[in-house]
Amino acid sequence: MEFTTGQIASLINGTVEGDPSLKISRLDKIQEGKPGGISFLSNEKYEPYLYTTEATAVIISEGFKPTKSFKTNLIRVKDAYLGFTHLLEAYAQFTKSALVGVVEPAYLDESSKMGQNGYRGAFSYIGKNCVLGENVKIHPQAHVGDRVQIGDNTVIHAGAKICADTVIGSNCEVSPGAVIGSDGFGFAPQEDGSYKTIPQIGNVILEDWVSIGANTTIDCATMGSTIIKRGAKIDNQVQIAHNVIIGENTVIAAQTGISGSTEIGKNCIIAGKAGIVGHIKIADNTTIGANTGISKTIKKSGQTLFGYMAMDMKNFLKSYTIFKNLEGLENRIKELEKKP
Amino acid sequence: MEFTTGQIASLINGTVEGDPSLKISRLDKIQEGKPGGISFLSNEKYEPYLYTTEATAVIISEGFKPTKSFKTNLIRVKDAYLGFTHLLEAYAQFTKSALVGVVEPAYLDESSKMGQNGYRGAFSYIGKNCVLGENVKIHPQAHVGDRVQIGDNTVIHAGAKICADTVIGSNCEVSPGAVIGSDGFGFAPQEDGSYKTIPQIGNVILEDWVSIGANTTIDCATMGSTIIKRGAKIDNQVQIAHNVIIGENTVIAAQTGISGSTEIGKNCIIAGKAGIVGHIKIADNTTIGANTGISKTIKKSGQTLFGYMAMDMKNFLKSYTIFKNLEGLENRIKELEKKP
Amino acid sequence: MEFTTGQIASLINGTVEGDPSLKISRLDKIQEGKPGGISFLSNEKYEPYLYTTEATAVIISEGFKPTKSFKTNLIRVKDAYLGFTHLLEAYAQFTKSALVGVVEPAYLDESSKMGQNGYRGAFSYIGKNCVLGENVKIHPQAHVGDRVQIGDNTVIHAGAKICADTVIGSNCEVSPGAVIGSDGFGFAPQEDGSYKTIPQIGNVILEDWVSIGANTTIDCATMGSTIIKRGAKIDNQVQIAHNVIIGENTVIAAQTGISGSTEIGKNCIIAGKAGIVGHIKIADNTTIGANTGISKTIKKSGQTLFGYMAMDMKNFLKSYTIFKNLEGLENRIKELEKKP
Repeated sequence: MEFTTGQIASLINGTVEGDPSLKISRLDKIQEGKPGGISFLSNEKYEPYLYTTEATAVIISEGFKPTKSFKTNLIRVKDAYLGFTHLLEAYAQFTKSALVGVVEPAYLDESSKMGQNGYRGAFSYIGKNCVLGENVKIHPQAHVGDRVQIGDNTVIHAGAKICADTVIGSNCEVSPGAVIGSDGFGFAPQEDGSYKTIPQIGNVILEDWVSIGANTTIDCATMGSTIIKRGAKIDNQVQIAHNVIIGENTVIAAQTGISGSTEIGKNCIIAGKAGIVGHIKIADNTTIGANTGISKTIKKSGQTLFGYMAMDMKNFLKSYTIFKNLEGLENRIKELEKKP
Repeated sequence: MEFTTGQIASLINGTVEGDPSLKISRLDKIQEGKPGGISFLSNEKYEPYLYTTEATAVIISEGFKPTKSFKTNLIRVKDAYLGFTHLLEAYAQFTKSALVGVVEPAYLDESSKMGQNGYRGAFSYIGKNCVLGENVKIHPQAHVGDRVQIGDNTVIHAGAKICADTVIGSNCEVSPGAVIGSDGFGFAPQEDGSYKTIPQIGNVILEDWVSIGANTTIDCATMGSTIIKRGAKIDNQVQIAHNVIIGENTVIAAQTGISGSTEIGKNCIIAGKAGIVGHIKIADNTTIGANTGISKTIKKSGQTLFGYMAMDMKNFLKSYTIFKNLEGLENRIKELEKKP
Repeated sequence: MEFTTGQIASLINGTVEGDPSLKISRLDKIQEGKPGGISFLSNEKYEPYLYTTEATAVIISEGFKPTKSFKTNLIRVKDAYLGFTHLLEAYAQFTKSALVGVVEPAYLDESSKMGQNGYRGAFSYIGKNCVLGENVKIHPQAHVGDRVQIGDNTVIHAGAKICADTVIGSNCEVSPGAVIGSDGFGFAPQEDGSYKTIPQIGNVILEDWVSIGANTTIDCATMGSTIIKRGAKIDNQVQIAHNVIIGENTVIAAQTGISGSTEIGKNCIIAGKAGIVGHIKIADNTTIGANTGISKTIKKSGQTLFGYMAMDMKNFLKSYTIFKNLEGLENRIKELEKKP
């Protein structure tokens, strides 16, 4: 993919100061710029690189005045950072919409339907009675089980597995290797100590604008649905058990685990490696620190929790500071005990 | 798949009170019942839904007497919960056994053998010299490496990878994305600070009735076998290192990790995110709490352990309660220190 | 694959004491030796098994003198353990180099190039404009996205996903199910509480001799590169976020997570389930214990850190010992408080 400096300027409402016919094929950091690349200068800390960069062009803000000579070409916009962000988005959109058609061999059951401008990569699989919207992209080796529904503009990346009966909204992304709708972990203990599998007949629903990270797993409900609500963003290697509900615009970082039937509110931020037990509720706007364990319902919204067994973050840090020198504390007690 | 209310009643030894010719195609929660669905009523808390549900039929227990009018049809059995469970199992069994044959393109090396009533999905791969029993189901995009043995009725789900030389018993389930038999993490440090790979030539054995969760990884032994014994149930994203042995009917929840050469006894329950170091033994009937770290052999069976470094659960909770207000404890010491 | 005892002796510079024409097809532990297998005796603890083993041959060291009769054949080398290791390596090398050619159906875009002696398994996928070196092995169902570069002798195992623009050096191994180069977790909060995806346009670089475990995920950089340096060894289910740098010969055990833009030095050892926050640096030669949380830059090299919030390991253990009986500590304070 190749654009000219002039085309890029026009795309982001900027003006070229230099040659508008130069070819750009890459986005570079300004300190690593090479011919054929375009960078941006927003943070003044990076200004020195403007005078040495080999990038073909640099996006700069209206007010900026160079103080030395330079070799690169400028594209001047109102705000360099926003301009670059718009360029990034246009680039991502262009890359995504360029994927159209079918690369054989790819499997689509004859009972399933795909909307216009879809893409099915080589070795992708779509089972029976699926309904896929417009601009849906099923990357190579991705798996879509029977009776799955997928809304417009959603992308299922390489080797992701969408199990039977899953419902996915529009504008979602499911990253490589993620598993959506695997069986919940349900076993009934028998008298002889063995376990009998409890069939899992529910499904998973991802509402619109949901993003799922690489190798994340979301189990289907035992009955009913495991639900990830509109706008929630889930990072890599997160585990979400059967019948969990994740609220709107809640963000969950990598390696966090949420046990069965727990409900997380909306606009929560959950850091990496947190663990949340089953059958509890977490209030809206809760912030949960990295590696934090939550074992009880959180009713009050807006708290920041932290610790092996979660508590108010400030209090945890106070206690942990004393914990670090518990020996000192014990020595003070020993001194007191020596007193007559 | 569609059954009549009469067929279902006969399947679960019940009697229809209402119309035995109505069509059922779905299992519903009673509070979410819709026409064409069947529900059950076991917990009296849900009785009010019986009088409002739109489900076509509801399974109820012998002794139950409705106190209001209702629109649905009843299927009366000895115990509604057990009746529903039997229906679930029949449904799961039916769904599973309906998968027979080969969906091309699927790869089966000519040196390998499959038993009767098997299924191989599109883009599934079976390498050289494998022996698969009867009713084995290899779902789309699943991988079976060279010299793998798989017993009767075992299911390998979409995109699961069974590496070379693995031995799997009968009636096992391997969930989507799981990796069984990847190389153990073995590297010999060299004088220059680099590491040399130690070839891993062992395998993994899953005995009968073992269940493995989505994206779980089980490494092969350096030599000999990593063994998951009969009836063990392993959840999603669990990591089991080389040469580990997991005892019969032991249950391990999501995101737990077990390091090399450790032996876990039988009938243990290990909660999510636990971490167990290598080269130790855990006694039978041990219960290990969520996020618990185990660094030493547990000899006494039947204990319940918990904590960052595991200890008796009650004692941990006592200590943690005091930890939460260590500042208060220190203040009491300060007061004592002020005394003359 | 089958060798004679004589061929094996010649391969590892040893001499046969017994029959040099016996056939060996397997490597066995001495205590589990069966006809057709070869074992080794290095640790004197295992000497008794020499006199009972059914293995066809046992590798022993120069100086060793048997004290009882035995049925097996000996292959005598300078050092039995090293001899066996050489045999293992030869075996692994032989197995690897035996994989040559293409098993159809496999997809290779016509714009991409593979070197000599390569292997592409069934249902493997190689996208556009890729350059693969000599002896590169792409196992069944593995995924190589557009513009990927892979150096000589590198192996991509079953179902691993190498996303677009990744650069992999020579002699690397990527285990089954690993995802290299998935999008970084970057979202810009909007005024209405929702999040906008920040396009991730960087890549991942694995330098030479890097090993990546099963189902591990490494995100691409937002811009620039996430870099795993020469000789680093990464275990299963490790999560490495965007723009992280891992130093040379650093070893990271299973289920550890490293947040965005953090730099880990060289020759570090990081145990399982550790968590490291973003935007910090870890000095060379740092040892980090299992399940340890690191929230601050570590400047001093050579430390051993441990704990929920990392501290010097010895100090943590002292504090934790007191923590285990905090109730006892409190009781001593109570006693003191009773004093007049």
